[in-house]
Amino acid sequence: MIAALPQGTLQRLPQYLIMLKTELREGRTGVTAEDIGAVVQVSPSQVRHDLSVCGLEQEPSEAMEVQALIRLIEHAMGYDDVVTAVIVGAGQLGKALLSYQNYSDYGVEVVAAFDTDESLAGQEVGGKPILPVKRMTALCRRMKVHIGIITVPAAYAQEACDRLLEGGIQAIWNFAPVHLRVPEDVIVRNEIIAVSLGELSRALQEKRRND
Amino acid sequence: MIAALPQGTLQRLPQYLIMLKTELREGRTGVTAEDIGAVVQVSPSQVRHDLSVCGLEQEPSEAMEVQALIRLIEHAMGYDDVVTAVIVGAGQLGKALLSYQNYSDYGVEVVAAFDTDESLAGQEVGGKPILPVKRMTALCRRMKVHIGIITVPAAYAQEACDRLLEGGIQAIWNFAPVHLRVPEDVIVRNEIIAVSLGELSRALQEKRRND
Repeated sequence: MIAALPQGTLQRLPQYLIMLKTELREGRTGVTAEDIGAVVQVSPSQVRHDLSVCGLEQEPSEAMEVQALIRLIEHAMGYDDVVTAVIVGAGQLGKALLSYQNYSDYGVEVVAAFDTDESLAGQEVGGKPILPVKRMTALCRRMKVHIGIITVPAAYAQEACDRLLEGGIQAIWNFAPVHLRVPEDVIVRNEIIAVSLGELSRALQEKRRND
Repeated sequence: MIAALPQGTLQRLPQYLIMLKTELREGRTGVTAEDIGAVVQVSPSQVRHDLSVCGLEQEPSEAMEVQALIRLIEHAMGYDDVVTAVIVGAGQLGKALLSYQNYSDYGVEVVAAFDTDESLAGQEVGGKPILPVKRMTALCRRMKVHIGIITVPAAYAQEACDRLLEGGIQAIWNFAPVHLRVPEDVIVRNEIIAVSLGELSRALQEKRRND
């Protein structure tokens, strides 16, 4: 199910998931909206609203089963339909993204990384192979890969993007600090890692001035 | 200047900066709101509004000087007051964050990374040292470091956080998938890298259903 979830709900649900999975690991099987809200710093009524949007039908006062809540949220977020992804650029960031183990929690399977540096070919990071970039387009076609993750330097990002599109990729997660030119039907999400840090720095400066 | 910029403006300004810096690299010195809007996919009137919030006083029809616009936005975002940061955890992600070269564009200077694995000590990534974690608290105190970036596994994140706080850190950028316990006056930003990928996957699934 891919319901039209409100933007705020979409941003809070992954936080609830992390809280619920922590509870599960620690052996707790039941939680209340108050428990979730206290950890995630959201009001209990907001938690109840978000969960009802996901389809939870329950009296507000009842404790909720952790495992069932996890399944409910994952289903609402579309995480139970797995899509596949490849990474272009096996530098530090590419390797870090390749080594990440929890993609499946978000409904994504990363298949491989590609690099122009053929001396990297054959290496594995986190059990996933690094392959020569000249094989990328064909492999994306054959495996019907959905998402391309671009971690090459800015100057090579458009070329990497073009090759991914040739391979039939429908969505791009772009870490290069450039605006990519893509056909209208391709989804692009630009991730500028240091922007978050800039925002944190900004919040810090604002707080200091108000202290 | 740290003005109270609206949230939407705050999210668009870094995108404008990337566009403007690309223009500058390519040798263009003047742009219009239409030029910026076309690249960043925002309406020209929105661009003009965001820039006027930053303090731009200009007739809408005039071309704007690229260099002056960059300075204007950087100043409005508080990027010209540099804050310092350290990274805890020099695994793949820690190294990737250490190797990133453009923090200064966002008003941040990353000083060093720390790891419990002493065999890493003395290594450099991108010209920045990896140091033993036992030196972290004292170094943060001495250098008055503002931000701690946590890239250790979830099980060690709270301990890393506690040591950073002992070192006088005021803000945390947390990549570990846990909710950290911190005093009220500490700012925490949780970054769950795969959430963005999950959102992209979700947008892709939604689009397919509508096609």
